[in-house]
Amino acid sequence: MTVINFDDEYFMRQALIEAAKAKEENEIPIGCVIVSNNKIIARGHNMSEMLNDCTSHAEMIAITAAEEFTNSKYLQDCKLYVTVEPCLMCAGAIMWSQIAEIIYGTRDLKRGYSVFCNPFAKKIKIKGGILEQECRQLMQDFFKDKR
Amino acid sequence: MTVINFDDEYFMRQALIEAAKAKEENEIPIGCVIVSNNKIIARGHNMSEMLNDCTSHAEMIAITAAEEFTNSKYLQDCKLYVTVEPCLMCAGAIMWSQIAEIIYGTRDLKRGYSVFCNPFAKKIKIKGGILEQECRQLMQDFFKDKR
Repeated sequence: MTVINFDDEYFMRQALIEAAKAKEENEIPIGCVIVSNNKIIARGHNMSEMLNDCTSHAEMIAITAAEEFTNSKYLQDCKLYVTVEPCLMCAGAIMWSQIAEIIYGTRDLKRGYSVFCNPFAKKIKIKGGILEQECRQLMQDFFKDKR
Repeated sequence: MTVINFDDEYFMRQALIEAAKAKEENEIPIGCVIVSNNKIIARGHNMSEMLNDCTSHAEMIAITAAEEFTNSKYLQDCKLYVTVEPCLMCAGAIMWSQIAEIIYGTRDLKRGYSVFCNPFAKKIKIKGGILEQECRQLMQDFFKDKR
């Protein structure tokens, strides 16, 4: 019997599965899952190109879905896993949602929220570098292929 | 014959009409219109409560609608009118959309983007204080009634 360890790597791998869906759809390959009590309650991947909508980032889609699922505007008990550091828009949405913890894979040195400011109160936990290599490689390959 | 002057006050009044719709729906009364060549191409008002979705701010709804309308992720020739200074999430979305100009009514001293940082490049024009009194009053009355 295989015992599944529901740790950060497990959920980041799920976010990577979402990112791979984005890649297949020729979107910037970023994926996200939202977890409550070790259960994934929402998934999202970047759909900006398909929907012609700059707001359709992985995190935004997952937050909207999680709030629909929980029937609440607030996600205080949830963790958000995303393959790439959230942008300012997504950081703002995370702030509004009162998500308890952000776990991201690789930093975004151009558009990540931390390039601009840290809008989060101390009570939110932020962890970077989970499966960093895989998360970054997916992005690098995507942009290399575009050139 | 009445000549309509398509100036900032005219479009802010349209944003106020959107804010009034939010108020009727018991939402925080914020409204937005997006204008291209003196034509309103999208409207939005806050729908966070109704949709149980913290991402459903007036600006987000209007940006998504404008991008749907123009069939483009970018709104470079557009102006965004909003009754209250955008929050960080909405500022991030405006940044992605490449909107040319933001015109807001009253500042948001708690949650406005400028409390945290100024993420905008110099090329975006930002103007505050259009119909400020009316925009602020709408907010103040709303929160007074809530108490």
